[in-house]
Amino acid sequence: MPQGQPTVVPNDGLTTRQRRNRPLVFVHTGTGKGKSTAAFGLALRAWNQGWPVGVFQFVKSAKWRVGEERALRVLGETGEGGTVAWHKMGEGWSWVQRDIESSEEAAREGWEQVKRDLAAESYKLYVLDEFAYPMHWGWIDTAEVIEVLRNRPGTQHVVITGRNAPQELQDFADLVTDMTKVKHPMDAGQKGQRGIEW
Amino acid sequence: MPQGQPTVVPNDGLTTRQRRNRPLVFVHTGTGKGKSTAAFGLALRAWNQGWPVGVFQFVKSAKWRVGEERALRVLGETGEGGTVAWHKMGEGWSWVQRDIESSEEAAREGWEQVKRDLAAESYKLYVLDEFAYPMHWGWIDTAEVIEVLRNRPGTQHVVITGRNAPQELQDFADLVTDMTKVKHPMDAGQKGQRGIEW
Repeated sequence: MPQGQPTVVPNDGLTTRQRRNRPLVFVHTGTGKGKSTAAFGLALRAWNQGWPVGVFQFVKSAKWRVGEERALRVLGETGEGGTVAWHKMGEGWSWVQRDIESSEEAAREGWEQVKRDLAAESYKLYVLDEFAYPMHWGWIDTAEVIEVLRNRPGTQHVVITGRNAPQELQDFADLVTDMTKVKHPMDAGQKGQRGIEW
Repeated sequence: MPQGQPTVVPNDGLTTRQRRNRPLVFVHTGTGKGKSTAAFGLALRAWNQGWPVGVFQFVKSAKWRVGEERALRVLGETGEGGTVAWHKMGEGWSWVQRDIESSEEAAREGWEQVKRDLAAESYKLYVLDEFAYPMHWGWIDTAEVIEVLRNRPGTQHVVITGRNAPQELQDFADLVTDMTKVKHPMDAGQKGQRGIEW
């Protein structure tokens, strides 16, 4: 059941209002389902607040998350909430004009754009989907990510999803949920199905 | 990273197609964030498939999930995907005309409607938000819930969220994710904030 009360009051010199509006970093990690799905659920709340939302999909397949993408794009276009910008590594990123050689290069190009957008305060919520992988694989330096996030201007919330989120990132983040797989239909031979997996 | 291949092929006499379209029961439980948020993310995929979605909020507060509710209602009204029906215990349920005496009675009235809708195949995805609680508290008989779900007609997917989901329900479900709290801003004295918690 929802609990609105903090368990401790910190001695950080901030007023409740300042603390309430603190920009947050979320990490959704673990082997279970729901890491990205929960991030897109958060995007619904952001949309409802009228916030500009930026999604960066750090996955190879351009077809992945088609349901979430279409729903959020349609919402963004209604004009009844925030805007939604959706960027896909699987399509080579829209801002990159040349051929990208490798997934590693693609991931770095994505991160460079995230840095530019954070500096420009382009969005109020960033969904960095599957961004834990390029850090885990050493393609992107976790320490640099933490440094950039720590120094980001304004009130910009960032959600990072993916298995194996680096421990330093988890230590830095404000909220970390480990989606733990208890049981999955694929363990029982069930294949992914439309409307459920995508 | 997404994996589309099952780890074993079951000896259940079903074709891949039959197995693929099997109606599923999901349970999102645990103490971490993201249980309901991930369920509403699933609703985005269902909407994109044109499925009718029924949400039953088994929570007292009618104000809870306002962001998700508005986003899904707006999506449902676009006519570009499935329909969305949103039912709130916190407002006494629309189909109940008399005063409801207690939360326990309200929870039971909700479950009675879910049973009627399952029998009528009203929706293709049911989000039974925070429904684990009335089972955990003994207000609704878990064995009956399992029996009704086991015998539901057609292809109706059901997501049940909430802490302390009964073990029998987890044993019965096709997919169980435990959202494990690693770290939460409220532990550090952060209060809930608009756009993030609601």
